[in-house]
Amino acid sequence: MRWADIGEDVCSVSRALSVVGDRWTLLIIRSAFLGARRFSEFQKDIGLTRHRLSDRLNKLVEDQVFEKVQYQSNPVRYEYRLTDRGKELYPVIMTLVKWGDKWMAGDGGKPMEYEHKSCGNNIMPVLTCPECHEEIDPHDMKAMPGPALQALMNG
Amino acid sequence: MRWADIGEDVCSVSRALSVVGDRWTLLIIRSAFLGARRFSEFQKDIGLTRHRLSDRLNKLVEDQVFEKVQYQSNPVRYEYRLTDRGKELYPVIMTLVKWGDKWMAGDGGKPMEYEHKSCGNNIMPVLTCPECHEEIDPHDMKAMPGPALQALMNG
Repeated sequence: MRWADIGEDVCSVSRALSVVGDRWTLLIIRSAFLGARRFSEFQKDIGLTRHRLSDRLNKLVEDQVFEKVQYQSNPVRYEYRLTDRGKELYPVIMTLVKWGDKWMAGDGGKPMEYEHKSCGNNIMPVLTCPECHEEIDPHDMKAMPGPALQALMNG
Repeated sequence: MRWADIGEDVCSVSRALSVVGDRWTLLIIRSAFLGARRFSEFQKDIGLTRHRLSDRLNKLVEDQVFEKVQYQSNPVRYEYRLTDRGKELYPVIMTLVKWGDKWMAGDGGKPMEYEHKSCGNNIMPVLTCPECHEEIDPHDMKAMPGPALQALMNG
């Protein structure tokens, strides 16, 4: 089975990337996980022009990754808060952190370290199987058509 | 501490995105995990023009995500194989799949399903703590400056 036969749209990576498939968008989301909420905070973190940052924040609100919430009335000011949908992008950001730490680190070592507060250890998360709890090795994973693809293939 | 104070470059997400921060690049890597190796296979999967696909594959070879290996001599033909560095992007792809499955699914359900061959279950991987084995909740993670940032902050 080739992807081309089944349509670009029936692919969760492709769909996910239609929302977050832009370098700046992922950096905005990373900043939000590190505590940024206000336009000026994102701008200071990322160094993007007002116009481009505004474009991306608006698209992320439209895509329901952020909600825009008024936090001050005089003058009116808004902040951008991650929605549940946005918060669930955390694993995408952390797997990028992990890869960057390992393969793109400079001489100085890791830029950031992470404490898992519930157990107190300094950790880097791992992707595991929820059934057998083993760490995932790509070679152990078999991709098969799911319901959406089966329906397409059958008719 | 604000990111802007410490320099954009000392950030693993930013560094990782300098390699994979492009929608098409991530789709190319996804295709590789689904078995594509040859130029024509990537082209069929992704539907990108020859010129643009060639650009991105060359950059991925330069960035050591793929190695370009000759598989035929007459005429000379090459294929693109994921390096170890490339294979370790699997968690990034799978976390995107998971998010897309949950938040961007159409009416038809999941496009693909995944069997963990070593235990035989149909699963979707979870991000867990390697110490206490709990699933990671972003609220339980505390980000702290690592060695590279500490060095920068100290002068």
